[in-house]
This record gives sequence, structure tokens and C-alpha cells, in this order.
Amino acid sequence: MEKDVSIGLLGLGVVGSGVIKIVEDHQEELQHQLGRGVKVEKVLVRDIEKARQIEIDHRLLTTNCEDVLANPDIDVVVEVMGGVENARKYILEALQAKKHVVTANKDLIALHGPELEETARQNGCDLFYEASVGGGIPLLRGLSDGLVSDRIQQVMGIVNGTTNYILTKMAKEGQSYEDALQKAQELGFAEADPTADVEGLDAARKMVILARLSFFTNVELEDVEVEGISKLSLTDIEYGKKLDLTMKLIGFANRHNNQIEVSVQPTFLSKSHPLASVNDEYNAVYVNGEAVGETMFYGPGAGSLPTATAVMSDVVEAIKNMLLGVNGKKFVKPRFEKELTPSDKRFSQFYLRLHVKDEIGAFASISDLFNRLDISFERILQTPSEKGFAEIIVVTHKTSLENFQNAMKKLDELQVIDTVESYFRVEGDA
Amino acid sequence: MEKDVSIGLLGLGVVGSGVIKIVEDHQEELQHQLGRGVKVEKVLVRDIEKARQIEIDHRLLTTNCEDVLANPDIDVVVEVMGGVENARKYILEALQAKKHVVTANKDLIALHGPELEETARQNGCDLFYEASVGGGIPLLRGLSDGLVSDRIQQVMGIVNGTTNYILTKMAKEGQSYEDALQKAQELGFAEADPTADVEGLDAARKMVILARLSFFTNVELEDVEVEGISKLSLTDIEYGKKLDLTMKLIGFANRHNNQIEVSVQPTFLSKSHPLASVNDEYNAVYVNGEAVGETMFYGPGAGSLPTATAVMSDVVEAIKNMLLGVNGKKFVKPRFEKELTPSDKRFSQFYLRLHVKDEIGAFASISDLFNRLDISFERILQTPSEKGFAEIIVVTHKTSLENFQNAMKKLDELQVIDTVESYFRVEGDA
Repeated sequence: MEKDVSIGLLGLGVVGSGVIKIVEDHQEELQHQLGRGVKVEKVLVRDIEKARQIEIDHRLLTTNCEDVLANPDIDVVVEVMGGVENARKYILEALQAKKHVVTANKDLIALHGPELEETARQNGCDLFYEASVGGGIPLLRGLSDGLVSDRIQQVMGIVNGTTNYILTKMAKEGQSYEDALQKAQELGFAEADPTADVEGLDAARKMVILARLSFFTNVELEDVEVEGISKLSLTDIEYGKKLDLTMKLIGFANRHNNQIEVSVQPTFLSKSHPLASVNDEYNAVYVNGEAVGETMFYGPGAGSLPTATAVMSDVVEAIKNMLLGVNGKKFVKPRFEKELTPSDKRFSQFYLRLHVKDEIGAFASISDLFNRLDISFERILQTPSEKGFAEIIVVTHKTSLENFQNAMKKLDELQVIDTVESYFRVEGDA
Repeated sequence: MEKDVSIGLLGLGVVGSGVIKIVEDHQEELQHQLGRGVKVEKVLVRDIEKARQIEIDHRLLTTNCEDVLANPDIDVVVEVMGGVENARKYILEALQAKKHVVTANKDLIALHGPELEETARQNGCDLFYEASVGGGIPLLRGLSDGLVSDRIQQVMGIVNGTTNYILTKMAKEGQSYEDALQKAQELGFAEADPTADVEGLDAARKMVILARLSFFTNVELEDVEVEGISKLSLTDIEYGKKLDLTMKLIGFANRHNNQIEVSVQPTFLSKSHPLASVNDEYNAVYVNGEAVGETMFYGPGAGSLPTATAVMSDVVEAIKNMLLGVNGKKFVKPRFEKELTPSDKRFSQFYLRLHVKDEIGAFASISDLFNRLDISFERILQTPSEKGFAEIIVVTHKTSLENFQNAMKKLDELQVIDTVESYFRVEGDA
């Protein structure tokens, strides 16, 4: 029997505990894949005595990072501590010590991925991060290996489970945003401070990673336009239902020729779009490739064991590469200069809700304005007027973002408009 | 610039033409991935002069298989000719000549996969077949690499696009089986002789491949219980809708402890099941892993370019392995003795439609029979009687297949039953 391969963990939170559990429970699977066992040699924690969800031999725990990073027995370092600065420092040190690194840290990869990959490459080490997007879904591998010969045109994803849970509750149970958020917090799907999730920042980081992998460009976090769900009103979600539209927080990475758009925004999807029926805390990423057409990857976007499964798939790959002597060969090098798609070349349908004065010719003056801008309506909903005001909801045909934004400016000047209540992008042949 | 890698094609039908097109159109992507180009060196065809969908230099075509199999310039042989006997012979010859082989041939892999893999292993060659299941969906890679550390419990798939197209037409447009089949034939989704598709044989072959990969056992085609869709009645599909159940042809590969079940059968899925909304010619495979939980892979199950994308992902992997000198390392060796799950350990819900005499106590005697067998009903639908007969539809709670089959036998003896019209497995919390 060959000697076990030793791995070291940085962190023992939700994902770290899952890794420990998989290494224990699925040792037989690992043995079969690798012809040898995998064992956890050392785990860096902040507090050895802290009560934990899993049983673990205290001799494995350490508060000194060097016990992992400078440990000659450890071949693969698994970073599951989160945060950016310390994680970055430790990973750089591990790579410089010629250890392969697996991380689940989307924030770190979104911010410092290129630097870390360059360091890994220089040291002949693997750096894998399958778990950083889509939790347990084998997604990055699907994109980078499975669709390797294709030219990806669009990646559209529900990549944040917290917001998808909240939106599902709002849509299915008619809960307000606040109630749904509270419920999510009670169930552990949302954190005490939910800002990163509900404002779309978490999704934006994941889209940076997906856009880099899909388009081979040096996308940065600042290139992503981000809008969260905290200002969403139940009213729009209910109107959407009447129009067969489902509200989701969608991350977009679109390529038109060599220009790209990366954004995160609340979006109405037509009911027939594969992403529209992805509910609760689940994640799914829809990929459109020039040759393959439409594919979708669906699964748990978070959680201890699912995420640990993705981490361990990377660990197994790094170990296989070690046994074959071929580490450090798989990096996505940018090969296109980044060029962002300007708003006159970004086309979609739009949903728009207006509060208008109920007077003769009100709708005519609105439709006249859109008509002059060459924006036509696909669907119109007008509610009965109340206290002299009516609500008008329209879904436009496809138009450019620039054109639509232009219309929004001009609408403000229109006498008959009381307020522009809301507008959203619409995708998937409404 | 490095020298191009040369591949040889066996066959130039739908998939072969797609491979030619991707090699031409996506040469830049291939260059980037491999640091060198890929070119098609020779293509085995039956008739050089035949009119084709794509333009191809006739000097590349040959009717002599040795021009591919014994060609010293060719490193990777791509088998896309279909059929079993010749394909097997050619692939064995290619492997013995130390050429790596990529095939899209599910029939061949289902029947002779283990023999071919053993030959590949002995010759230090790769043998990949991503395209054999799920067309363009990077599915086998997701199962074998992405979920490598997990223990897969269930694979449920819509793995045949023809039957899914037919069932979608029946459900959405109320077409009869015959009309939907004819439409599928007109659109090229079904062949002139549709037997292999509609009787579930094509799906069965794919499930053999999925079951081997998921459970590491020597599953054979004869282990699969197969039932097709050719006897399905629109009546059941319509009743299903009333019960929020969607009819799909589902391939199952289930593991209970170390016993497995592999089957293909028309199945009612609850509307909330991720597979229930997979429509038209699309394929999707739902995977339940012990650690990862529910994941799903969705995409085009057939078609020239999608399938060619999967073929090319294998070609790229084989070439990468060549450049690294690590071919012939990735095979799924059976490690469990095959043991099939007996019918008393296979549990599910069932849908049952009965034609009964409309007399007092009819329903009581039926429910009494089920009650004695410990089968309880979750839902009951009774139609108004017509000419002295009524239709009763029940959905049972979970029970064993043995128990249910037992009930079916006893029903036949029941005076009040006119006919047992149909029964189906039900999955996904009806």
C-alpha cells in the first residue's frame, strides 16, 4: 500500500468541517481513485478549544500557520478560512513552498486570482478553486474542460443562494423582502449582516471568476455593474407573475464580438427560461456556447458537504497531477484585451412600471415618446385607476440599454407621469 | 510554432461534420489550449463522391480504413461512424497501433466498453466517450471528475431527446403519440425506424454507461429493465396534469447499499422535480450524491455541433495527456460485484388508472385490497360514470415494487374491476 497523501487545512468552519467529514467517510472512494489514502495532517484554527460541529483529534489542530505552510509532510494546502488579506498571504507562502493549493475563496480569487495563478505557475504548483462558484456544482470544470473547444457567448447565473431563497419566498408565498430576509437569516441562509449577498456583491465576485474563465480576459471586480435586491417591491414580483415573468437576481457575462458585459441585476425571466424554475437556495448557471448551444448546471450553491465535495474534487485533481508529475499546467491566461460593451450595444427587453395621472391621452403621450425613440411594446397592463392615478406596466421589445435609459430620462419630463416606479431587464423571450 | 496534432475521423455523418466544423472555426481556441493547432488528416467514408452538408477537401477522404488506422501521422482517432461490429474492430486496431481513441458511440460502449478500456489500458492509450451520453452536456466529466470524492446514490436522466420531444408535444399540445412521432420524424428528431428511441433501448444503453461510471460495477445491457413510450396514452398524460404530474421517459440508476437498479421507464414526475421542466429535445441528468446532494446537468442531447463539442473536449484532453506523457491513466475499473436490487427493496409511489363497474362498494373493495397489502393512497380522482363504468385514478404513497405488483395481480381477480388501464412509477414527492 502506498503512503497516504497529507493535506493541510487553513480554517475549520462550515466548509473545512465538510472536508474533514468527506476525507473520513469517503476514504474508500479516495483510495480507489488515487491508489492511496488521503489524510488531514494539520488544521489551522483560531481557537483550539472552541466547540465544533465535528469531532476532531485536538492534536491535528494548531494556531500556528507555519505548522501547515512550512510542514514538509503536507503536499496540498486547502484554504477554507475566508477573508482576503491573510488568505492571500498564506496561499502565496504555501505556493512558494511548492505546495499545491485548493481554495473555496471567491473574494480572494476575484480580487487576486491572476497574481496567485502567476505565483503558482512560477512554482510549478496547482491552484484550483472549483468551490468558489456554485458550491457543489462541477461548474468551472464543465466550462474549462467540457466546453474547451467551444466559444462561450453568454453565461447567465443564479450564483447566490441567499438572494434566490429570498426571491423564491417573495414570489411563492407573497412575503415582503424584509420578512423573507428574516426567514433566511433564521434558517442560516443569510448572515446577520446580509449586505454582501443582498446587494449583489457576492454574485459580482463569482461573475468575475466566470467571466475570466469564459472569455479569457482580465475582468476585474470594478468592471461589474451591480444592483442588489434590497429595493425590490413585492408589487413588481406580483405583476411579473401576471406576465409570466419570474424575478431572479441574475449575473450576466455576455460577449458580443470581443466586447464583454459583466453585470449583476434583478431580472425578469420568462417562465420558460431554464433558470426561471431554479428555486430556494439552489444555484444554476446557464451557458450559451457558439457550438454547444444552451447548457445548464444546477445544484447546491453552498453548504458544508456540497462545497467540500467541490474542494475535494480539486484536491484529487492536484494529487493525480502530483502522481503523474504534471502540476502547474492548467491556468487561464488572458488572451484578449478587455473591452466593455457600451450601452448602445447592449440589447434586451425591459419591464417598466409607471404611476400615471388618469387623464385622457395619458397613455398616448407615453407610447408616443417610446415610439419616437423606436421602442415598441410587447405587452401592456393597465390597472383600474384609483384616486385619479393608474398604474401602467409595459414590457418592451428588444432595445439598446442606451435607448431605454434615454427614454427613462425623457419620461421624467412628461406631464402625465406621476412616478417611474421601477424598471428591470427582461430575458428569455417574454 | 509547434507542429499541428493530426486526428483521423472514422465517419463523416452528422457528428463527424460537426467535428470538421469546430476544428475549422475554433482553431484559435484549440491553439490557445494546446499551444499548437489541430488538423484533420484523413476521414474514412463509404462513398467519397457523396453530396455532403459541409465542404471538405476530397483529398482528405478515403474509403480505406488503413489510411486512418495505420497512418503514422495520426495521433488521435475519432470514431463517429456508429454501428457496433466495424466500430469495435477499428477501435481495437487503432488502440493496438497506440492511437488514442475518442468515440461518440453509446451502443458500442454499452456493449463492449470494458473490453475496449482494457485494450486501451494495455496499450497506454486514452479512450474517451463524453459524447456517448447527453450529447453536448459535459456530463461524464462532471460525474467522474467533479463528483470524484462523493458517493453517488442516484442518477435519473432524460437521456433520449426523441422521446422527450414526443412527450412534450403530447403534454403541451395534446397530440397523440402517433402524431407527435410523425412530427418528430419530419423535424429530424426521430428516425424512419424509431424503435431504438421509442422503446427505450437508446436510453438503456446510456444508463448502462452512467451506472458503470457512477457505481463502479460491471453493469450490462441485459441488467436494465426497459419500457418505452409507444403504448402511452394521452389520457394518462392529461390525468397526470390534473395531479401536477409530468410524464417523462426516465432512466434510473439507483443504489441502495451495494445493490443497484438500472431501468428505463415512463415515469410521472411531480411538477417541482428539476427534470419535470426539461422539454422538447433537451436532455438532463439529475444526480444525487451522498455529500453533494442534488445536482443537475442540462443541455442538448444530440445535434451536430453540440455532440462535436463533447467529442472535441475529449480530443483536447487526449492531446493534453499526450503532451504531458500521461495517457491511459483514466479508466473506471469495477470494484463492486454487481448485485441487483430485488423488487421488495425498490420503493416508489405509483399512479394507477382503473376502469371499474359503477356499483355500490366498488371503491371500497379496491381500497380494502390495497389496505390489506399496506398500500395507502395519497391522491384519488374519480370521474363521473359513463355507461355504467367509471374511471378511478389513484396515486399511492411509497411502497415496494413487489408489493405493488402483488396488488396488480390481485386486482385482476376483483369483480368490480373492468380493466387495469395503466400504471406508472411516480417520483419526486407527488
